[in-house]
Amino acid sequence: MTTAFETLERTETRTGVKTMKATVFHGVNDIRVDEVPRPRAGVGEAVIRVTLTTICGTDVHILRGEYPVRPGLIIGHEPVGVIEELGPGLTGYKVGDRVLVGAITPCGQCLACLSGHQAQCGHGNGYEALGGWRFGNTIHGSQAEYLLVPNAQANMAKIPDELTDQQVVLLADIASTGFSGAESGQVKIGDSVVVFAQGPIGLCATAGAKLMGAALIIGVDVDDYRLAMARKMGADVVLDPRKVDVVEEIKKLTGGGVDVAIEALGTQQTFENCLRSLRPGGTLSSLGVYSGKLQMPYDAFAAGLGDHRIITTLCPGGKERMRRLIETVRRGRVDLTPPLTHTFPLDRIKEAYDLFAQRRDGVLKVAIRP
Amino acid sequence: MTTAFETLERTETRTGVKTMKATVFHGVNDIRVDEVPRPRAGVGEAVIRVTLTTICGTDVHILRGEYPVRPGLIIGHEPVGVIEELGPGLTGYKVGDRVLVGAITPCGQCLACLSGHQAQCGHGNGYEALGGWRFGNTIHGSQAEYLLVPNAQANMAKIPDELTDQQVVLLADIASTGFSGAESGQVKIGDSVVVFAQGPIGLCATAGAKLMGAALIIGVDVDDYRLAMARKMGADVVLDPRKVDVVEEIKKLTGGGVDVAIEALGTQQTFENCLRSLRPGGTLSSLGVYSGKLQMPYDAFAAGLGDHRIITTLCPGGKERMRRLIETVRRGRVDLTPPLTHTFPLDRIKEAYDLFAQRRDGVLKVAIRP
Amino acid sequence: MTTAFETLERTETRTGVKTMKATVFHGVNDIRVDEVPRPRAGVGEAVIRVTLTTICGTDVHILRGEYPVRPGLIIGHEPVGVIEELGPGLTGYKVGDRVLVGAITPCGQCLACLSGHQAQCGHGNGYEALGGWRFGNTIHGSQAEYLLVPNAQANMAKIPDELTDQQVVLLADIASTGFSGAESGQVKIGDSVVVFAQGPIGLCATAGAKLMGAALIIGVDVDDYRLAMARKMGADVVLDPRKVDVVEEIKKLTGGGVDVAIEALGTQQTFENCLRSLRPGGTLSSLGVYSGKLQMPYDAFAAGLGDHRIITTLCPGGKERMRRLIETVRRGRVDLTPPLTHTFPLDRIKEAYDLFAQRRDGVLKVAIRP
Amino acid sequence: MTTAFETLERTETRTGVKTMKATVFHGVNDIRVDEVPRPRAGVGEAVIRVTLTTICGTDVHILRGEYPVRPGLIIGHEPVGVIEELGPGLTGYKVGDRVLVGAITPCGQCLACLSGHQAQCGHGNGYEALGGWRFGNTIHGSQAEYLLVPNAQANMAKIPDELTDQQVVLLADIASTGFSGAESGQVKIGDSVVVFAQGPIGLCATAGAKLMGAALIIGVDVDDYRLAMARKMGADVVLDPRKVDVVEEIKKLTGGGVDVAIEALGTQQTFENCLRSLRPGGTLSSLGVYSGKLQMPYDAFAAGLGDHRIITTLCPGGKERMRRLIETVRRGRVDLTPPLTHTFPLDRIKEAYDLFAQRRDGVLKVAIRP
Repeated sequence: MTTAFETLERTETRTGVKTMKATVFHGVNDIRVDEVPRPRAGVGEAVIRVTLTTICGTDVHILRGEYPVRPGLIIGHEPVGVIEELGPGLTGYKVGDRVLVGAITPCGQCLACLSGHQAQCGHGNGYEALGGWRFGNTIHGSQAEYLLVPNAQANMAKIPDELTDQQVVLLADIASTGFSGAESGQVKIGDSVVVFAQGPIGLCATAGAKLMGAALIIGVDVDDYRLAMARKMGADVVLDPRKVDVVEEIKKLTGGGVDVAIEALGTQQTFENCLRSLRPGGTLSSLGVYSGKLQMPYDAFAAGLGDHRIITTLCPGGKERMRRLIETVRRGRVDLTPPLTHTFPLDRIKEAYDLFAQRRDGVLKVAIRP
Repeated sequence: MTTAFETLERTETRTGVKTMKATVFHGVNDIRVDEVPRPRAGVGEAVIRVTLTTICGTDVHILRGEYPVRPGLIIGHEPVGVIEELGPGLTGYKVGDRVLVGAITPCGQCLACLSGHQAQCGHGNGYEALGGWRFGNTIHGSQAEYLLVPNAQANMAKIPDELTDQQVVLLADIASTGFSGAESGQVKIGDSVVVFAQGPIGLCATAGAKLMGAALIIGVDVDDYRLAMARKMGADVVLDPRKVDVVEEIKKLTGGGVDVAIEALGTQQTFENCLRSLRPGGTLSSLGVYSGKLQMPYDAFAAGLGDHRIITTLCPGGKERMRRLIETVRRGRVDLTPPLTHTFPLDRIKEAYDLFAQRRDGVLKVAIRP
Repeated sequence: MTTAFETLERTETRTGVKTMKATVFHGVNDIRVDEVPRPRAGVGEAVIRVTLTTICGTDVHILRGEYPVRPGLIIGHEPVGVIEELGPGLTGYKVGDRVLVGAITPCGQCLACLSGHQAQCGHGNGYEALGGWRFGNTIHGSQAEYLLVPNAQANMAKIPDELTDQQVVLLADIASTGFSGAESGQVKIGDSVVVFAQGPIGLCATAGAKLMGAALIIGVDVDDYRLAMARKMGADVVLDPRKVDVVEEIKKLTGGGVDVAIEALGTQQTFENCLRSLRPGGTLSSLGVYSGKLQMPYDAFAAGLGDHRIITTLCPGGKERMRRLIETVRRGRVDLTPPLTHTFPLDRIKEAYDLFAQRRDGVLKVAIRP
Repeated sequence: MTTAFETLERTETRTGVKTMKATVFHGVNDIRVDEVPRPRAGVGEAVIRVTLTTICGTDVHILRGEYPVRPGLIIGHEPVGVIEELGPGLTGYKVGDRVLVGAITPCGQCLACLSGHQAQCGHGNGYEALGGWRFGNTIHGSQAEYLLVPNAQANMAKIPDELTDQQVVLLADIASTGFSGAESGQVKIGDSVVVFAQGPIGLCATAGAKLMGAALIIGVDVDDYRLAMARKMGADVVLDPRKVDVVEEIKKLTGGGVDVAIEALGTQQTFENCLRSLRPGGTLSSLGVYSGKLQMPYDAFAAGLGDHRIITTLCPGGKERMRRLIETVRRGRVDLTPPLTHTFPLDRIKEAYDLFAQRRDGVLKVAIRP
């Protein structure tokens, strides 16, 4: 789909423009830091100079060819930066403002956005599945010195001076997604919650469940380091499937099943264990990205008669979401710096990808400084 | 689980009691109208003289041995009747009151009921999957001259004189379940809704979607008679999978997918078609009873990133639910007599089962008059 | 507050532009059809040629000086028209498209809009009380030959050919507001609802309650014609405070109070009667515009301990809202032409105001054809 | 209204029964510790031996004659105790179980309870305003050695051995009510919340807002000790109306108004300040008990057009509520012992009333040990 704001081609074919360094996908297992044209802001757009960004698990899928994007695309989708240029039609911003931009950049003006389904943004018109995720997917992303922000009016949240880039960069995707696991699960004061898998998103789901008042939070993973981090982020109990029958243990701890089970990995096994961990009437809040055919054994969800809810959520975006999350960090409700284990300069991003893809050195999340 | 109100054994072993006719499950494909002891009301219980009841699809599953119940059980779970006896602890009722009792009889006092999950009633204590469904399942049911009502204070709704038994009997299960398909789907004014399968429950889901303000209601079935009935109950468009590619047609009619898809059959195909019919962010409201492994092809639900919701609902019960549905009929909002196609006396219930199980004579729903 | 899209001044001071006829507020009790400059579309804006609009009660308040607007303003806020000009940054529209524009025109990109509070739109930035209502309030309105639509991407809903202007014009405000009375009240299947005052908005609230499945709808007014119209729009029972004690009657009809009371007038008496009509735990959904000090006698809301909810709602706008309402009309769910009792050409709009303000000839709603 | 479970009279007129000490209301400003008959458990009832209870602000209103109850009534409504006797019809409990009983004791089986409005319980039948509050109001209360628990199946929550009476006693009313201020306000992650008045309920509302993920919590009071306690319970900022213009300060801190304002006092001024503190679209969650005519200046709520919500909530009760709150304490999410500043034996309860009524010695909440 082409929209008024798809300026990718235009930017690339412009001559005489200034250039910048950017992480470009050339093909499977082939990303390079190239010198490419710097973007310019069109109507409703802005350009930010990126001061901090990250590598996400999705980027690794892209690199491996498991999630297809077109060659030539700059990847990355968690940007913090400083406004460099403002296109026509923007109000309330000025060059030099330091901003956080969500991984999901809703237009705010299509049927999906106006219905509150901003992650399924139709870019001015109807609904488009995953349409809100554009950075490093359908338009150039943030692993670069500069980033063109579409629908910038709806997507740039100012960062208070008192917060560092490191404190807020994970809000763009990881934390917004992780928290949404608890939010879509409608966690209530006194709930019992299990979070399957304690990678960056699962850890933030754990933090989200704690933020929302869950009484008992159970973290599940097979990695000791992540289980320790889970405790730090809010888990009361951690379970390792290598050591115990997790579902049985959960039933014991809760007297029959959790109110909310959050899936944060995207596998048949974790999904099914989530289902089996629920009490009748419980909610499975799913954050994972699945492939193939997901199976729901009928006994695991009471043959369809257990009043269960299964909710899937893509990262909530937009500047109001970012603003709220920034406030949550600012007031000390949550500290997202522990999962940000490593930082690399943009020049050495290939090393960073290696480290991250191979999960070396207890890596959870890698920051990239352009 | 044994509760204070499980009076089945007590009733059966009492000697010298009055007797009644009842439809007893003796084993697979063996039900008989037997002379059995009449029940007596214990603490918090009531006995009603059944004036109208029905045969439900579930009863056919029981008869065929597909849903196991113990031999000796009286089956049936949609009762209208007159109060014959009131046990200790009841208030606000008197012998002779004409009442409707839901198929689901919540205790109102367990953790599940107090949390609003009355269909998963734990009989005074915690949660129990499907625990609210007791009639013709774990305690004696309604295809009999008399019926013992557990937790009667919570479960008997008085019927206004102006309404006939026929007008309200389907509210006990079929209509409460069907409407809940639209309710759990959170149908809003202006929504587009598809209902897969137009048997009795699907027809009531169609009526429910109309009641809640859906703009476009699409009914799907492979039976011409049921499709005609679907139109009568509120469908604007009907689709027959034998003739068209239903999912493609739905996408065309709605410009990209429905807001809510209601599954009212319980098969892999209808479930999957529901998923494929949704717009991003849409809701699958599931009423069917599934067996085996249900599969969710990852492409059908955007790999878990489409902000979809899948909600399963067991029939809502309790006297307040019944009261509300009775009011809905009383004010002419919905007429449930068309799907009540046949009536038999209790003596001839085996004929009724035959007709119903074989779907002869355009049967939708059979009433039984004890 | 000045925004990028406040083009009022620019339009007025431009020289050599084409002109148009428009209804201009000159001062209290002084409106005139003037020849004024035709608007031009800036970034994100569109100009439509108005084919049908209305006079609203609010316009009468403006005329009388009860709601202050600045002299020189073109009034009116319920427009149907044809796109004449599209400014930069719009996608998916073409000149000649026939569109409905809501009275409320959210930007979709401020904190309020991104939080779902579109009527309190902050025009790209924060929240602004009533900020979404701009036509005929803070920018030029629709009682003119042409209308400048701000944030046009978010606000123009295409009208299917099969529908006339008359069928959809009331969706812009009256019906969207009226329905929202039922929606904010969270009317459920089987609810009892009372609507106080059966003017245009109250009639649409009555229709909205019916659309959402209320079992019993009670319409209250002191005008026989309006009570008759209330029956046509969905009321089961109508009550006239001149003849009965309305609150007492409602309690009798409902056995203790309604689930939802909708206020559609904006007076102390109707507000208080709404409160007194509620059952414990009921909801007062308020649509009226109040002046002075509204009083809540403590006994009318159980001293604050009755689990009551009082919700106020300003007309929901935006193109998705309009699209949904258009679909509701298109599928025959509601017919809004009965309340559209009179039509005048723009030239004779002063006559129309007289008739409307004095409620002559059973007038409910007046259409204006430029 | 008389119900099957109103055993007050019966208990009092029984002869030869054992006796107990109890705090009896004899008339205005006249309570005495009397020797009265011990209650016996009827159908569905239980008797507990009270091990800890409290004095509540409401009790002081009763003592002063501001809230009328009949002479002879035992007052008090926050009980922890040990089951002494179980009436017929109960299951899952045994004599000797240590239990918490909520101040609100819903029957679970009336229309109100089955609709989720348990505080407006109709005792088996319809709705009754405040009907769920019976202890020390319409039946004997907890400031006694023994307490008769109506609808005991729905109302006794077992206390884990690891928790003391002191840790859970405030859950019966104060904490359940206070938390509900945040819950009814639908506090979300990142919200800004103000709580007007930091008495026991306001302090728990503050804790509730923190539990639910509010980013900014503002506590308002005129008492330094209470403001200090507010900080301990979760307030980020405290404001004293004697020193600053509170509404102005809140607008400054939040950039335009809070998302949720919680009223925890019950006066015109705090109610009005709540309204004035809200952003457009904000929610006023009201816990206070009002007298006289509450006024809503039209400018404070945008003349009814600000999309505001005003929600009143009476303390949620029932054993599932108590169980959830107990879990919240057990897992260390909240510590309610700081507001429990004093403890007295039952014999010296008059001293305790004096201290509490006069707010001496920094008293917040007084425990009574029978």
